[in-house]
Amino acid sequence: MKPHGPIPPGFAADAGGMLLIGGDRAEALADVAGDTPLFVYDSAMLAARVAEWRAAMPAEVQLHYAMKANPYAPLLAFMGRLVDGFDVASGGELRAALASGMAPEHISFAGPGKRDRELEAAIEAGATLNLESAGEAGRALSIAARLGVTPRLAVRVNPDFDLKGSGMKMGGGAKPFGVDADAVPALVRRLIDAGADWQGFHIFAGSQALDAGAIAETQARTVALAGRLANAIGAAPPLVNLGGGMGVPYFPGDVAVDVAAVGAALGDTLAKRDAALADSRFAMELGRWLVAEAGVYLTRVIDRKTSHGETFLVTDGGLHHQLAASGNFGTVIRRNYPIGVANRFGADPEETVSVVGCLCTPLDRLGDQVALPRAQVGDLIALFLAGAYGATASPAGFLGQGAAREMLV
Amino acid sequence: MKPHGPIPPGFAADAGGMLLIGGDRAEALADVAGDTPLFVYDSAMLAARVAEWRAAMPAEVQLHYAMKANPYAPLLAFMGRLVDGFDVASGGELRAALASGMAPEHISFAGPGKRDRELEAAIEAGATLNLESAGEAGRALSIAARLGVTPRLAVRVNPDFDLKGSGMKMGGGAKPFGVDADAVPALVRRLIDAGADWQGFHIFAGSQALDAGAIAETQARTVALAGRLANAIGAAPPLVNLGGGMGVPYFPGDVAVDVAAVGAALGDTLAKRDAALADSRFAMELGRWLVAEAGVYLTRVIDRKTSHGETFLVTDGGLHHQLAASGNFGTVIRRNYPIGVANRFGADPEETVSVVGCLCTPLDRLGDQVALPRAQVGDLIALFLAGAYGATASPAGFLGQGAAREMLV
Repeated sequence: MKPHGPIPPGFAADAGGMLLIGGDRAEALADVAGDTPLFVYDSAMLAARVAEWRAAMPAEVQLHYAMKANPYAPLLAFMGRLVDGFDVASGGELRAALASGMAPEHISFAGPGKRDRELEAAIEAGATLNLESAGEAGRALSIAARLGVTPRLAVRVNPDFDLKGSGMKMGGGAKPFGVDADAVPALVRRLIDAGADWQGFHIFAGSQALDAGAIAETQARTVALAGRLANAIGAAPPLVNLGGGMGVPYFPGDVAVDVAAVGAALGDTLAKRDAALADSRFAMELGRWLVAEAGVYLTRVIDRKTSHGETFLVTDGGLHHQLAASGNFGTVIRRNYPIGVANRFGADPEETVSVVGCLCTPLDRLGDQVALPRAQVGDLIALFLAGAYGATASPAGFLGQGAAREMLV
Repeated sequence: MKPHGPIPPGFAADAGGMLLIGGDRAEALADVAGDTPLFVYDSAMLAARVAEWRAAMPAEVQLHYAMKANPYAPLLAFMGRLVDGFDVASGGELRAALASGMAPEHISFAGPGKRDRELEAAIEAGATLNLESAGEAGRALSIAARLGVTPRLAVRVNPDFDLKGSGMKMGGGAKPFGVDADAVPALVRRLIDAGADWQGFHIFAGSQALDAGAIAETQARTVALAGRLANAIGAAPPLVNLGGGMGVPYFPGDVAVDVAAVGAALGDTLAKRDAALADSRFAMELGRWLVAEAGVYLTRVIDRKTSHGETFLVTDGGLHHQLAASGNFGTVIRRNYPIGVANRFGADPEETVSVVGCLCTPLDRLGDQVALPRAQVGDLIALFLAGAYGATASPAGFLGQGAAREMLV
């Protein structure tokens, strides 16, 4: 038997043992959707998450949603009413953000390979571009001049430090992201001299960290770096985007981030900030932490079989919807995401089984030798932490399967 | 500097150093396609690959194409005229195979999680189902009885051995695929007794092996297993699908499979086969080996930047089209696929660069510290071995990017 990650708090079953998501029975949700596999996102959990963040953080810090984590349109519209801005990573995401009703001045666009047409779309819409290089700055200024508009331009900074313990390091050494810190002042002065509407800095040192102390230390270093840059430039950044970094507990032994501790430390950091940042606004940009726990992936058992003494539950889902859960996206060692039998939720484990997807590849494993209550053909398997980097971060067309259904409840 | 894998044989440049694909200049192909990123598949290389296989293999062995490797419709139609059958892995692939013009009696459908509606579609069309369990066999028989048709049913066997050195092990121990060998005779007798049109065995021990000796040994064990099963059943399998196994050299040091050696050994194996298999036909099911080398992924340099002394070429492509090349699909250690600068193809390396995609994630790396001729913004990067498990095996919707263009030349 191999352990699985912790089931996120807040999920419970009805008297019959059926998992409830947003108060609805999982089986009933599958009926409404018309088929499995199905992603269900719980809007109350999304709202609670935003509220938890706001309660913990200094009031002056804005909350941005990094929509790459989950761009499902109804979820995006819902989140747009709760947060202060969206961060987008492509022209496609920019269109989706605008279509959701988010005001362009609250949209910022980061990404190392923006095409000219994507720069133009952002400048025309009035969104902020987080510039990733001097070359991109030049292209943006040329496009804005041709359009005859004043572009909103921020500079993404490649910090000289990373976020310790983060699953994805975005700073500390040679990176394709942003501009090395020592080259930032000259670039910002060039933007200001060219008449651009300089919006400030985007400094993203890493993501998916669980240690509040490491996050707090990185935020302190980020604010200090912003202060040094402001002094070198001789101008205050209107906004300092501190990046994200707060992860969620996917695996056995992982413990949730102490958000209150992060917030308290950030309050101290901001209170002591360099005078050059006195009038600056600050934002955190969160994706995974805001939406991962609110999502459940429901997939139905199609076959139950035994091979050489091991039991397999074969489902109608798989890595084409949950690539990361299969262990094939950004992880070196495969570990089990939190998983359960939705129609026997909370029942004691009765057997050790492997839960596999329907794809004809040994990579397609959703739960490896996990202890579960006994499940039969027709039962529903729930894979948790499916709200972020699920549907769109998986190869939906692989083996001709197609996308899963999605639903916001 | 880190090495990249070997460029497949058969690619050359024109006098100006531009990569030719199927005799066409890479830049001209991008013009015709209208944009990059672009997958180009060379039909002459596909045909040559099939011819190479046929020249090497015993005449009695059929060639099936496992379309999961590349289901692009024009490629599928082209391959359908060259091979003896298609192997599909979902209802979606079944529809595509039928739409390509392949006769249903030359289509077989394997996959551990077939839904009832997929079984029904295959039975109605007259395709062969490779049954993966006793439970699936029961469902197929019930559906056929309800439809009033005689189903074409083969049994996928989980062999007691694997393919040594294979990238994907599909046999040897507890597997979600097929029926353990010792349970096969009873299941086949049940199918025959139920009046099904028993089609034989599907025995797939592994894939992506480069050692001809290992492939030959596995084929010998596969034929021996089929013979033992035929004797136990008391009936000859009409067809024995020997699986695939032949891989392609992706990485430094990899050497292409000696196809002639595989063919000679298979000839010996079949000549010595058990009398129970005297009238059986045999097939190999190949995907990657047939199509990988014929495909090139073309992506354009959007930015050239330096960070802490390292040079990055930022392209308009990325892991959303070439997940495996980024090292994030089925590989533990990231290594470089064969890569080149299409408009300076064959020129001597001048610098060490990292080629990254346009996605805002450190996972999006197509070439890590590779030695290339100097490339500028606007140049075309060619990533080779893009014909298999590229477009459909990648998360095209990630970060709102969308699918790449595809073209058969």
